[in-house]
Amino acid sequence: MELISENVRYLGADASWDDAQIVLYGAPFDGTTSFRPGTRFGPAAMREASIGLENYSPYLDKHLTDLAIYDAGDLVPPIGSVSKMINLVEDQTLRIAQAGKVPLMLGGEHSISLGAIRAMAQVYPDLRVIHFDAHTDLRPEFMEEPLSHACVIYHAWEILGDKKIASFGIRSGEAEEFAFARDHLAFHPFDLEGLKEYVAGLKVQKLPVYFTLDLDVLDPAYLPGTGTPEPGGVTYLDLQNKIYQMAGLNVVGLDIMELSPPYDESGVSTVLACKLLREILLALFA
Amino acid sequence: MELISENVRYLGADASWDDAQIVLYGAPFDGTTSFRPGTRFGPAAMREASIGLENYSPYLDKHLTDLAIYDAGDLVPPIGSVSKMINLVEDQTLRIAQAGKVPLMLGGEHSISLGAIRAMAQVYPDLRVIHFDAHTDLRPEFMEEPLSHACVIYHAWEILGDKKIASFGIRSGEAEEFAFARDHLAFHPFDLEGLKEYVAGLKVQKLPVYFTLDLDVLDPAYLPGTGTPEPGGVTYLDLQNKIYQMAGLNVVGLDIMELSPPYDESGVSTVLACKLLREILLALFA
Amino acid sequence: MELISENVRYLGADASWDDAQIVLYGAPFDGTTSFRPGTRFGPAAMREASIGLENYSPYLDKHLTDLAIYDAGDLVPPIGSVSKMINLVEDQTLRIAQAGKVPLMLGGEHSISLGAIRAMAQVYPDLRVIHFDAHTDLRPEFMEEPLSHACVIYHAWEILGDKKIASFGIRSGEAEEFAFARDHLAFHPFDLEGLKEYVAGLKVQKLPVYFTLDLDVLDPAYLPGTGTPEPGGVTYLDLQNKIYQMAGLNVVGLDIMELSPPYDESGVSTVLACKLLREILLALFA
Amino acid sequence: MELISENVRYLGADASWDDAQIVLYGAPFDGTTSFRPGTRFGPAAMREASIGLENYSPYLDKHLTDLAIYDAGDLVPPIGSVSKMINLVEDQTLRIAQAGKVPLMLGGEHSISLGAIRAMAQVYPDLRVIHFDAHTDLRPEFMEEPLSHACVIYHAWEILGDKKIASFGIRSGEAEEFAFARDHLAFHPFDLEGLKEYVAGLKVQKLPVYFTLDLDVLDPAYLPGTGTPEPGGVTYLDLQNKIYQMAGLNVVGLDIMELSPPYDESGVSTVLACKLLREILLALFA
Amino acid sequence: MELISENVRYLGADASWDDAQIVLYGAPFDGTTSFRPGTRFGPAAMREASIGLENYSPYLDKHLTDLAIYDAGDLVPPIGSVSKMINLVEDQTLRIAQAGKVPLMLGGEHSISLGAIRAMAQVYPDLRVIHFDAHTDLRPEFMEEPLSHACVIYHAWEILGDKKIASFGIRSGEAEEFAFARDHLAFHPFDLEGLKEYVAGLKVQKLPVYFTLDLDVLDPAYLPGTGTPEPGGVTYLDLQNKIYQMAGLNVVGLDIMELSPPYDESGVSTVLACKLLREILLALFA
Amino acid sequence: MELISENVRYLGADASWDDAQIVLYGAPFDGTTSFRPGTRFGPAAMREASIGLENYSPYLDKHLTDLAIYDAGDLVPPIGSVSKMINLVEDQTLRIAQAGKVPLMLGGEHSISLGAIRAMAQVYPDLRVIHFDAHTDLRPEFMEEPLSHACVIYHAWEILGDKKIASFGIRSGEAEEFAFARDHLAFHPFDLEGLKEYVAGLKVQKLPVYFTLDLDVLDPAYLPGTGTPEPGGVTYLDLQNKIYQMAGLNVVGLDIMELSPPYDESGVSTVLACKLLREILLALFA
Repeated sequence: MELISENVRYLGADASWDDAQIVLYGAPFDGTTSFRPGTRFGPAAMREASIGLENYSPYLDKHLTDLAIYDAGDLVPPIGSVSKMINLVEDQTLRIAQAGKVPLMLGGEHSISLGAIRAMAQVYPDLRVIHFDAHTDLRPEFMEEPLSHACVIYHAWEILGDKKIASFGIRSGEAEEFAFARDHLAFHPFDLEGLKEYVAGLKVQKLPVYFTLDLDVLDPAYLPGTGTPEPGGVTYLDLQNKIYQMAGLNVVGLDIMELSPPYDESGVSTVLACKLLREILLALFA
Repeated sequence: MELISENVRYLGADASWDDAQIVLYGAPFDGTTSFRPGTRFGPAAMREASIGLENYSPYLDKHLTDLAIYDAGDLVPPIGSVSKMINLVEDQTLRIAQAGKVPLMLGGEHSISLGAIRAMAQVYPDLRVIHFDAHTDLRPEFMEEPLSHACVIYHAWEILGDKKIASFGIRSGEAEEFAFARDHLAFHPFDLEGLKEYVAGLKVQKLPVYFTLDLDVLDPAYLPGTGTPEPGGVTYLDLQNKIYQMAGLNVVGLDIMELSPPYDESGVSTVLACKLLREILLALFA
Repeated sequence: MELISENVRYLGADASWDDAQIVLYGAPFDGTTSFRPGTRFGPAAMREASIGLENYSPYLDKHLTDLAIYDAGDLVPPIGSVSKMINLVEDQTLRIAQAGKVPLMLGGEHSISLGAIRAMAQVYPDLRVIHFDAHTDLRPEFMEEPLSHACVIYHAWEILGDKKIASFGIRSGEAEEFAFARDHLAFHPFDLEGLKEYVAGLKVQKLPVYFTLDLDVLDPAYLPGTGTPEPGGVTYLDLQNKIYQMAGLNVVGLDIMELSPPYDESGVSTVLACKLLREILLALFA
Repeated sequence: MELISENVRYLGADASWDDAQIVLYGAPFDGTTSFRPGTRFGPAAMREASIGLENYSPYLDKHLTDLAIYDAGDLVPPIGSVSKMINLVEDQTLRIAQAGKVPLMLGGEHSISLGAIRAMAQVYPDLRVIHFDAHTDLRPEFMEEPLSHACVIYHAWEILGDKKIASFGIRSGEAEEFAFARDHLAFHPFDLEGLKEYVAGLKVQKLPVYFTLDLDVLDPAYLPGTGTPEPGGVTYLDLQNKIYQMAGLNVVGLDIMELSPPYDESGVSTVLACKLLREILLALFA
Repeated sequence: MELISENVRYLGADASWDDAQIVLYGAPFDGTTSFRPGTRFGPAAMREASIGLENYSPYLDKHLTDLAIYDAGDLVPPIGSVSKMINLVEDQTLRIAQAGKVPLMLGGEHSISLGAIRAMAQVYPDLRVIHFDAHTDLRPEFMEEPLSHACVIYHAWEILGDKKIASFGIRSGEAEEFAFARDHLAFHPFDLEGLKEYVAGLKVQKLPVYFTLDLDVLDPAYLPGTGTPEPGGVTYLDLQNKIYQMAGLNVVGLDIMELSPPYDESGVSTVLACKLLREILLALFA
Repeated sequence: MELISENVRYLGADASWDDAQIVLYGAPFDGTTSFRPGTRFGPAAMREASIGLENYSPYLDKHLTDLAIYDAGDLVPPIGSVSKMINLVEDQTLRIAQAGKVPLMLGGEHSISLGAIRAMAQVYPDLRVIHFDAHTDLRPEFMEEPLSHACVIYHAWEILGDKKIASFGIRSGEAEEFAFARDHLAFHPFDLEGLKEYVAGLKVQKLPVYFTLDLDVLDPAYLPGTGTPEPGGVTYLDLQNKIYQMAGLNVVGLDIMELSPPYDESGVSTVLACKLLREILLALFA
């Protein structure tokens, strides 16, 4: 018996699992126990708003329908336990990557990108990470919680080692974190300058890249709907143009994190995230 | 290849199609073309908020898990065309009812209940409708639009005939509508008084009943999150107690309509709708 | 040259000045210099929301179109000067009342009702005032400002003298104000009990009555959109029923004050004020 | 009998019809039947907020009072019927333009600019249109609705013919629309570059120009209060500077559309629209 | 050197530590790491809003100034660690109670009332607790977190033993919790009935009482600003009247918890909490 | 008896009065009598949000803890009387400055900066003022109120005389104010250009400088949370960079005014103000 209802899918994510080049899924986790805030609503809001988005990018003259994307729905988060959630993300990412497909996670708080990076490092031993963010996320431990969103890059570095992670746009953190970043990462604080050169190097080596995008790299004038807004970020157009510079990279997985729709009642932040994701997908994979 | 993600289901709606006694689905339709407002967000918001709800009703000493409910996801609305949406609802309702299961629609605007009533009248020729609402919904035509939410009961009457529909709580409409209602419906304006007696009559006859609940029957102090709030409605506790009076009825289908989460930023309206639905399910089916 | 545009009028206020029995006007004044808050937006919001209101009251079986109402637009407030605004209200009220018509002011903050009462007392020397409010409004002076909304009834008493003002619903004020009220007013604190008996006395004497309604007499659960909400007020239905008890009174003028639409984003407060005004007009004048 | 109340007029719009060079009116239409959202509130919000605006532009060293503007109030929209509303706009525009005055419409959704363009093309057969927008608005039909805001420029092209419309700032639409625009319009996608050269050509020919401004040409960081926000737009200062480049053009009519005050609770979008309109009026007509 | 600035104190809380009968302090803790939501803002919002409150209760004909209250400011919460925060509350409560004064905590989430009850049980070995709440709060463990707000009464029972805690208004919880409550507490589910009789018994025995008030015992129509709203609660007036029934009890400590100002943008919830606290203080201590 | 509670202090403002180099205090005044809006909430919101701020500036490689700051709490505003409030600010500023410390006021509306400038001019006879603002604030009288926020710079000029005040970023005012500014101030309208040169001159002379920052100098895209937003302002990064150009100046006092948290529900405006203040403190004093 076939019913006619179905769940909302991300715009254009109409491929089957078998045909899919990219597998999108939501990770609606924000680690709080209240039913109201915040990033947990990111994936659902993005799917909903994507319906109003054009399938066509006039900037790139390409269509989302040129890609084969499967929308695998959402992970069901074990509320309150970040470690279990990271394990879930790791497991999901592993299944997708081992099938030769590109995992694309819609967050959710940034902490859980750790699960994705853990999985990708297993499948691609020489993995590199490109990281856009306002915050260093390099604290070994934050408020008694070793797996908070303030630590995700530190733990990724524990897995990948020195100079495998390139951080861009960072403008907030402790002095020790900035020092650590200068020593152990490819570190480009404050804005997205230097990306083009860094990307050129990776292209030569054809290295596999995981792209983790914390949306708060944007100035909060453009994206107020995020958990820890940090003034002084890049404009939307600057970010979009930098994404285009990544075309041609061997991106094997990616995530787009920290959209918190309830903090922006105008709905603009969610619309921005949808448009940006369209441009990312078309620039990197079409 | 089995992925571990899935879509959010209504609390306790964990049964398979085959096992289900009740089949729940969303009808996220509000007839506007903008991406923002209003009742279209009802089903998703209810699923999300249901996670925070207790499975147990202390009023009835019963559990939602005592019921076998299948969550069939959402209809994909043909945006802007109410007639196509009504057809979709009719088709979906027919499939569920013909399989001997109880269809339960989460709205969405009230206009589309017409599709459900059309289907139910085919399966159950002696169908009765119990209708809770603030508005008569009896206009043959409203603003050039014969299928608006202001007309749904009129069209249901065209199908079912005189005195097959019992309307309760009505406190707004035109004089002609109130006159029509007195002549052609079992009409109980202003509040929910008279329900017990009406229900007693139906029980004796064991007649099949469709229950259509426009949430604006509640006073907007209790439910501000609805499209056309009408002061002077019933309290939550009054409504809950009246629901309990319906226990024992042969309810063969139902809907809960006109929740508009964006109009209530406190989230309370959605929480109320979830709790009320739990009590309805446990009172009528457990 | 006749253009086809016009300004929004209150629902059904389609009479000309000459034909009108009732003359409605807005007094969009809240004494602040900022462009954003609060009661100043009351009249415009009520006109706008009245479009969605039914013309017909099913409670009274009467239509707003049975009344001849002229909508005279809004006073242009001299921002920041409450005394000039009160003079303006006095002048406007005088013109309407001297023409034998009933002035109906949509507020705006309660302080400016003083202008209306001043004018009405000139035209009707044996005027009585019925006053619904949460607050005593009996302070001779409030925060260096003798004409604030906390003083309006005190100044009305200076004009009318002892026992000419009946206050209902009062539940906040200083001890001295409560003592003063018990000595000098017909005082019915906490709720609307005693209205029926008071009204009966006025009817026997056929005395002219000015009805000043501060909407905060309602519990803020029903009307959050007001400047100084005071928990413990009456329900909407109680207020509506009490209004019906005033039918047959010789009401020669009235106002409905302190709606502050920006404080209730659901829009419910404004809808309530519109419906309540319809019931007041139909109960008192149709 | 003269009452002292009046309706709020746009700042400085104090001229009589006979003296007026420019006739401003509101078109509060957004095609939805709900009482709450969206662009319908644009004109009233702009009039209200204009009170707080300075009459003087320090950029241009000119005053709004140097212009003779008549505020004709608002069209009363036939709710739900876009074709009747467009006819109303056409009729109104015709009356104003035939009297030798400049019509200035405050929207309202962009679809109804079609009425204005229809009228202007009758009065000025060699009319040109300058169009600022985020969206192509070139679909012959959108969601079964041939007169939606997604089609207005297509229908304008049907009237005016090839290369009579110049579109700037466009960054969203279907591939077919972008192709059509390149073939049939003077098309300047993504930003406002090329305006100066285009304007220079029109000045030489002294051609009459209708300026239709969809405010969503701005980046939503500057104007979140609009119906279909599209990230990647121009800044406020860039738009203002481009407006100055239009000084000296023979602008015979104009509109400013798609302000939706409820989507920006800070009120900033409305303030921006007011200031921008002041600069437009002073740059083009003073 | 004495500066003239000072911190906002609760209305009338002007006594010194030495003179104080009651010591009020804030516990702005909600266990989340984000900077935005929720109950953490309760104490500051209550102090601020209390400025607008009348010092005089017309219901009781008493003044807040009749009491000697010291406002000790706020505890500085160790963000993220509920056990440390509970210890802090215990320590603070102990210091106050051992000095023979009445501790009054403004929450903050309900979990931390455990610290207060722990301290009070040390000072008053035969302590009784009166508990108003919508939720049982009787789970031994909730989401891996033994000290969450869902467990506070269970842990209080571990300290005090059987039948020492009287719970009123409870309408949500698991079946096991309701069974436990019936066996081990004086349990009055759903509303506040039975309070008068229970209080009479305590008065005879002159037993010391700690009163813990979770504001969500109110229906969310009256208090939308709380973390886990539960429809079907008591009205404000019912709660106020029940408080008056507690007059004459030997209340040795109390708290008022779970106000979450950000969830109610109208500000009404905070105003209600302030007024309610005034009535509690005057009814129990003046 | 030492209790363990305390009031929230600004991040890092942990010095005692004796040790402090800088004394911070709040001036929560906005001149309205309502309990809800606006700038009055600025100081409390900044203290609260500062907790989430990093102590470290990666731009300047300095820590807030390098400074000795004493947080003196808030002035208690005499509600409604701006002249008394200005006197209070003057008195407070005098006490701080005469003790050889730097007063830092968190506003509050801009009008009250007059009190600070009055005091500083007594202590430092050759005082200069650097003024960032969107508005001239040069009206001798505004709406019958000589001490409104629209007049503060005019009154400061009366004290200091010609060419002692440098205004930057001004883009709104009357023609007479712009003319006055050109004649009597060092006037840099529209943006912050010219600051570097102006500052260089002051450094040579080692003149004492009071820095008064009206946050509305920023474009409202960056700071919607302010009382009179004026489009066309500077970006956050531009403002931050200009602040760095002031390093080395002899700044003897400062204020940061017109943050109005309730107008920006995303919280971003408050976060921006906190970060900006950190950069100001570190650039000017560390």
